[in-house]
This record gives sequence, C-alpha cells and structure tokens, in this order.
Amino acid sequence: MTNPVFERIAIIGIGLIGSSIARAAVEKGAVGAVSIFDANTDALARAGELGLGETHASAAEAVTDADAVFLCVPVGAMGRAGEAAAAMKAGAVLTDVGSVKGAVVADVAALAPEGVHFVPGHPIAGTEKSGPDAGFPSLFEGRWCILTPLADKGAEYDAAAERLAEFWRRLGSTVEVMTPERHDLVLAITSHLPHLIAYNICATAHDMESVTEGEVVKFSAAGFRDFTRIAASDPTMWRDVFLNNRDAVLEALGRFEDDLTALRKAIRNGDGQTLFDLFTHSRGIRQSILDAGQDTTAPNFGRDKPKG
Amino acid sequence: MTNPVFERIAIIGIGLIGSSIARAAVEKGAVGAVSIFDANTDALARAGELGLGETHASAAEAVTDADAVFLCVPVGAMGRAGEAAAAMKAGAVLTDVGSVKGAVVADVAALAPEGVHFVPGHPIAGTEKSGPDAGFPSLFEGRWCILTPLADKGAEYDAAAERLAEFWRRLGSTVEVMTPERHDLVLAITSHLPHLIAYNICATAHDMESVTEGEVVKFSAAGFRDFTRIAASDPTMWRDVFLNNRDAVLEALGRFEDDLTALRKAIRNGDGQTLFDLFTHSRGIRQSILDAGQDTTAPNFGRDKPKG
Repeated sequence: MTNPVFERIAIIGIGLIGSSIARAAVEKGAVGAVSIFDANTDALARAGELGLGETHASAAEAVTDADAVFLCVPVGAMGRAGEAAAAMKAGAVLTDVGSVKGAVVADVAALAPEGVHFVPGHPIAGTEKSGPDAGFPSLFEGRWCILTPLADKGAEYDAAAERLAEFWRRLGSTVEVMTPERHDLVLAITSHLPHLIAYNICATAHDMESVTEGEVVKFSAAGFRDFTRIAASDPTMWRDVFLNNRDAVLEALGRFEDDLTALRKAIRNGDGQTLFDLFTHSRGIRQSILDAGQDTTAPNFGRDKPKG
Repeated sequence: MTNPVFERIAIIGIGLIGSSIARAAVEKGAVGAVSIFDANTDALARAGELGLGETHASAAEAVTDADAVFLCVPVGAMGRAGEAAAAMKAGAVLTDVGSVKGAVVADVAALAPEGVHFVPGHPIAGTEKSGPDAGFPSLFEGRWCILTPLADKGAEYDAAAERLAEFWRRLGSTVEVMTPERHDLVLAITSHLPHLIAYNICATAHDMESVTEGEVVKFSAAGFRDFTRIAASDPTMWRDVFLNNRDAVLEALGRFEDDLTALRKAIRNGDGQTLFDLFTHSRGIRQSILDAGQDTTAPNFGRDKPKG
C-alpha cells in the first residue's frame, strides 16, 4: 500500500460528492482518517450510520486536526462553510468542489488564515442523485478534476496545490489547471447551459396544457426523457450555480437563443439543406465525445440493452 | 408456437427500425416470411448478408405477395415508397413507422388501391444509431406503438387495423390509438422539440469560439453529453420531421422560448425562489417517468456503474 496523501481530511457537507470523496479516499488509501460535518443533522447521522468517517457536532471541530478540508456544499453556502477555516491548522489545504469558481474564490479566499492554503477545485463528476446514500467510490475514476489555484502565492502554496492534485489522481481523476474565469466560461457551456435548457424543457412540457403531463411521461422515450435526467439534479445546488455564474450563463444563453432563432427560421422557410448540414455536424460532435472516452458507445446509453 | 399474425410482410427501407421489425417479427413468430426492399443498394445487400429476409430488386416485387407492408423510410420519402402500394394484393395492410402522421397520411393515403388498408403507425422506440446493422429484436419490448387509423373505413378496415395492433403487441409493444393531429402535437413536445433543442445546443457549443470544441468535448460529462446522444440521430430522418411537422414544432418552440425568457429574467434578477421551485418541479417529472417504467432508475442512465 502506498502512503496516504493526507493523514486526515475533513469533509464539510456529506452529500453525493462529499460522501463519494470519503468512500473513494478510504478505498484508495489516499487518507488515513475522515472527519465529517454537515449542517443537516439527518445527513450527518446517516453518514455515521454508513460508516463514512468520524462525525462531528461542528465544522470547527471537524477541521481542527485535518490536513485537508473539502467544502462540499452548494456554491451559495461556501462562504458560511468556509468560516470553519479559522480553526484549521497551519500548513493545511482548504479546497472545495463547487461548480462555480469565481464566486467561491470571492467568498472563501479571505477566510483562510495565514498558513492555510486555499486551492479551489471542481471534480467534473456526479449523478442526478443527492445525499450521503447516493455517493460511490468509483465516481471520480476516469473523470477530470479542475483546480484553479490562486496566483503568486509562493512555493509552499504550490506544493500544497500539488498535494491536492495528487489526492485527486489517487481517486482516479486527471487534473487540469485553469483560471477561475476560464473555468466558469467553459462550464457555462458544458454544464450550466445544458442544465438550464433541460430545466426549461421540463417547464415547457408541463405548460403545454393541451397535452397532459401523463402523455408527456408516457411517450417520453421518444427523446424527452434524456433531458429529465440532469433536470433531476439537486435544486439548491443548481439555483446557486445560476445565481453565482450569472454573466457567463447569460452569455451562453444569448448565443443559444441566437442559434435557435436561425434554426426556427430554417424550419419556417422549409430550408432542408441547412437543417441537414447542422444535424450532420452534431453527429460529429457526438463521435468526438465517444472518441474521447467521455460517454458510453452503447445505443440509448446502454439502458435498453438488446435482450435477444 | 402461436400462429403468425401475417404469413408474409414486406419491409421497405431496412434501417434501424425496418431491420428491428424484421428481426423481432421472425424471433417472436409474428410472421412466416419477410420480403425486403431498400432504394439504397448497399443497405439492401447488407440486409441480405445479415439474413434479415428475402431481398428484392424493386419495391413492387417485394410487396406483391405480402399480407402487410411496412414503409420504414424517412417521412419525406414516404410518398415515393408508397407508390409500391399499387402492386399490393387486396386485403393486405399498408402501414408506416414515420415520426409524423399528418403529412404521411396526406402523402400516402391516396396511393392505397381499393381493398388495401392503410393504417398509419409509429413505434415509440429507437436509438441514435442508423442502418441495418443497428437494429435488434428487443427494440419494441415494453415500448408504445401509436396507430392513427383512418376514420369511417368500415369493418374490414377495422379488422385490418386490429391485426396490425396484434402484430405490434406480439413484438412486445403496447398499442395506443389516436388521431394523426393528436399524435403530431404530442410528439412535437415529447420528441421533436427535444431533438431540436439538442441539435441547437450542439450548434451553440460549436459556435462558442472563445471555448474550443476540444474543451467542450473534454468536459462534456458535466451535462452536455446527455444532449449529444439524440443529436446523433439520422440527419435525413430529422430534417424530414421538422419540414413535415412544422406547425406543431413551431408552436412547441414558441412556448419553449417564452419559458426561457422567464427563466433568463429570474437569473438576471437573482430570483432564487423561482429557480428553486422550477427545479424542484422538474425533479418530480423525472420521478414520474421512472415510475412509469419509461427510463432506467440507475444514476447517469447506468452508464457509469459503481465498480467498487
């Protein structure tokens, strides 16, 4: 067995991501011990029952002896969760898993006391499920983890960031470094806009009063059901994403609407060639994702396996 | 073994759906023999190699002895494929699998000679793959098949429609009857709009010049990849759907855009409560789809299975 990367980590917020980190870190031998706090007492109790680590009655108590602290709460709750950093020991790493980085840096960076190294992060992994029961140890395998380290913080900070990167690699992820601004723009396209659109099409389906929801559900396998998976993700988490990455999301949304206007025009004008060319190009993007190993090649995501 | 529903069927167009019907009908004993024609000679030759049935050099030759003829071509090609109906025998059933029903009725109904019963259909089943190799016999199991029989055609017609319904049930589907207009409205919401939006978000991702396509692909697991599956569907088929169900699609699209305007306003105004309520409702729709058995309950569609 290789040595743990951190003797003890503390996880603040033991939902899907937090509980997956706890499970993965122990399974891969990346840590010696796990301390846990969650402001939701039910989640905290459940984490104890699941044996995910040592539960604590306060965030300050959980982080005191930790060599790395992971803030695994919705983006809008990072500032409050980050207040526990005051109780961290010198030399420890403070990080987070938020889907927005600029806003989290703004809310948390100033909370890290002298000697505590705040290295923002975002594992590009998850499912549409929530809570401590939803996590599993292989969640991060073969996935990307983006770190957005602060600039010009010195050699000790850089070493701390590298230690965190090593932790994520131990969990099976490939680490990518970029600025918070770049992260927020890239994720606005690859994640935030798709979730927004998925939520919106659910609203439209609901609004179509001439078609009952029963029929929408009944015939959802015709395409609609694909959108509902990500639209089932945690509402609090996603509310906070949109409130905290507003500019980049509105920019991506504006472009989406421009494209939609052009597409509507092609349909209205009966412009089959434009439609065909666009649809052919989309097929190419799908193939690129498959070639990059970022999705299953099985038809229908493999969920309707040929039984015959 | 129960008796076949039809002694011989003919399949015009041996792609994903046509080849799945051929495979399923033989496997379930729903037919005695299968005749095949495809205007694409490569597809026709491949169907022969795969042993899907007896291949013919013309549609007229393929349909001559058939008790039921299935038009399995893109909606825009139904009229031309339907011309073969002139060679069908009296008492036989003519049907199709098109994703639009009003336009197909307009193009095909008049082509059925006296004594041939045209019963339009649409199996709500498929994958994002195309061609004779993409089909599989269990494709229709546990799925809906919508029939839109013509009105007031008499007892012999009704018996033919019932025989076709029995065929689909034998393939594992549940048959639902509605008018072509109703079908086109319901599918505009559950299928055509989702495909349109999926194609559009692929276009937006491509257009965002400040973000390279490489990064969109790389971080696609954050949400975007879910949309690319249905956007990889056959471009010709989908061009024809949008050209032939234009009014219902534009109506659904208009409502989608209205909803998007409201959502954008909530983001711009920082209206977290509206976002939270909408996202919570979407979760409920997903649950309804799972309760109805129309999707897998496994996280991430089961494609990222916990290995640990």
